[in-house]
Amino acid sequence: MKQKDKNQVIVLAEKPVGMATLNTFQLREIDMPEIKEGEVLLKSLYVSVDPGMRGFMNEGANDYTGQKFQINEPITSRTVARVIESQSKKFSVGDIVNGRLAWKRYQSMGDDKLEWVDPQVLPISTAVSILGVPGLAAYFGLEKIGQIQKGETVVVSGAAGAVGSVAVQIAKIKGCRVVGIAGSDKKIEYIEKELGVDRGINYKKTNDIAIDLAKACPNGIDVFFDNVGGELLDAVLSLINKKARMVICGQIAVYNDTEPSKGPRPEHTLIKKSARIEGFVVFDFKNEFEEAKLKMTQWYIGGKLKYKENLIEGFENLPSAFIGLFTGENIGKQMVKI
Amino acid sequence: MKQKDKNQVIVLAEKPVGMATLNTFQLREIDMPEIKEGEVLLKSLYVSVDPGMRGFMNEGANDYTGQKFQINEPITSRTVARVIESQSKKFSVGDIVNGRLAWKRYQSMGDDKLEWVDPQVLPISTAVSILGVPGLAAYFGLEKIGQIQKGETVVVSGAAGAVGSVAVQIAKIKGCRVVGIAGSDKKIEYIEKELGVDRGINYKKTNDIAIDLAKACPNGIDVFFDNVGGELLDAVLSLINKKARMVICGQIAVYNDTEPSKGPRPEHTLIKKSARIEGFVVFDFKNEFEEAKLKMTQWYIGGKLKYKENLIEGFENLPSAFIGLFTGENIGKQMVKI
Repeated sequence: MKQKDKNQVIVLAEKPVGMATLNTFQLREIDMPEIKEGEVLLKSLYVSVDPGMRGFMNEGANDYTGQKFQINEPITSRTVARVIESQSKKFSVGDIVNGRLAWKRYQSMGDDKLEWVDPQVLPISTAVSILGVPGLAAYFGLEKIGQIQKGETVVVSGAAGAVGSVAVQIAKIKGCRVVGIAGSDKKIEYIEKELGVDRGINYKKTNDIAIDLAKACPNGIDVFFDNVGGELLDAVLSLINKKARMVICGQIAVYNDTEPSKGPRPEHTLIKKSARIEGFVVFDFKNEFEEAKLKMTQWYIGGKLKYKENLIEGFENLPSAFIGLFTGENIGKQMVKI
Repeated sequence: MKQKDKNQVIVLAEKPVGMATLNTFQLREIDMPEIKEGEVLLKSLYVSVDPGMRGFMNEGANDYTGQKFQINEPITSRTVARVIESQSKKFSVGDIVNGRLAWKRYQSMGDDKLEWVDPQVLPISTAVSILGVPGLAAYFGLEKIGQIQKGETVVVSGAAGAVGSVAVQIAKIKGCRVVGIAGSDKKIEYIEKELGVDRGINYKKTNDIAIDLAKACPNGIDVFFDNVGGELLDAVLSLINKKARMVICGQIAVYNDTEPSKGPRPEHTLIKKSARIEGFVVFDFKNEFEEAKLKMTQWYIGGKLKYKENLIEGFENLPSAFIGLFTGENIGKQMVKI
């Protein structure tokens, strides 16, 4: 079954300063790998690009998971792949798996680093979208960190994105009033009409986000689920209720900053409102992944949870798909189909 | 039993901008009050002055509890008083009580707004120090918000103050490594020698607080109990461990600021470390006050918990005692004995 295609890899060519560009990456021809006992040979099918990866490219320990991208080393991200050769007892040829893989067309991998993907229930690409890190981040961020309760007002930034679009729907399922913030009329229409958000705010069309938020949240804000970072939090803090929870999930607005941005210190408001700001990474809840995936699959089958994947075709387009995360108009989960 | 002394009140004379001064306050002669059914006539004995009161003096809703100081209205604070006349079924003449009272030598008060103080166990002044708001803030801040665990490293700012000096001791009782930050060598000596703090840091004598903190916390920081506010938090954030809790109790460094101070946004670190910053006010835990007081009384009797009260004599010195909180060299709980 071994493919005769040439193999390719995309490596980090230079540490970007500010926004990553096409020069940040380099595509190289490499040999097809051999596999050893306990390994499988994988053909990449769907490769996820995530805003948080930008942090791994910086100098210094600017990563969440201990992972870092080094110059001349492959970029890695969550990937769905097919087993095309196996010396593993765990996986057979034809199996679909998912894991943190290198940006390679073909690669060998130990079977202990891979999860089996059930091809029967949802499309296999969902293993890196709604049933992958973005979906799980929405789920655990709201359930465990935000601890959302029925009747509360939940504000979600980046509401049309991979994480935000799941978060707004889970908050609706839980009986919350949901306000979504996004950056285009098309996105606002999507989250209001398709995802059932009570009120969408296009932050690029507002003179004062705090005023628009106040109108959209007549009972104040109980939970803020932030995928964006920066000044939005300041506006939210001016409107929070007693015991509000600010869930910091992502920081797409600041990943490219060369210096940490400054803002008004929130501590006074946190005392006054007995409120908290809390960050998390989805892997904190690794032991509960299966339960969460099951619940989200049920919601999906029950028609309560939708998802949109934004597919770009072609291995060589991985760099531009990544860069597009920060500039693009994409709705839902951005990924590359090989 | 009605006293023949003249009565006096201290009112807010003007809204201070920046630091409060003697002109912020005015002492006035007033009549002795009459009491009605259900009320008692009180003689103030020990009046607490607290940094947080500064916030209540600002224009706008700058207070934690809905309370505000208005021009020409009396200042109020936690006070221990003696009942000198009673039309209450709850309290008899001679009883000691504590409550949020006006800065008056004598005042009438409904018995539903007062708590009885047991004069047998600890000195009655402790009702507004170690068994009052400062002690309870230390207790609940560490137990409920900080959730300190044996073996963790706990950093306390304002460590020689009314709240901090209790917090460092409770953290020691719970088996933590405790680092205290304070602003004079005398204070550092006090917290190290008298209160058993593992390492004291005089922030006024350091070139780089982050470096001194790193030395004092070789295993990183798990809990920060902040009474001071401002830049200290930035240094702490650079040293926190996974799942660290930053407990925001007080903000003495910034209460007098005319504009909210700015600082580097903490969200990126909070994600990276799955950490949180959380504020609270002690009244969030009102239902558990008695249990906490009992525990602290037991620690005191068992010799595990010490306290220091810094008494200034004379009703007319209340304003200067308050102002002294922000400039002074006082150790422990500042109060005025009438």
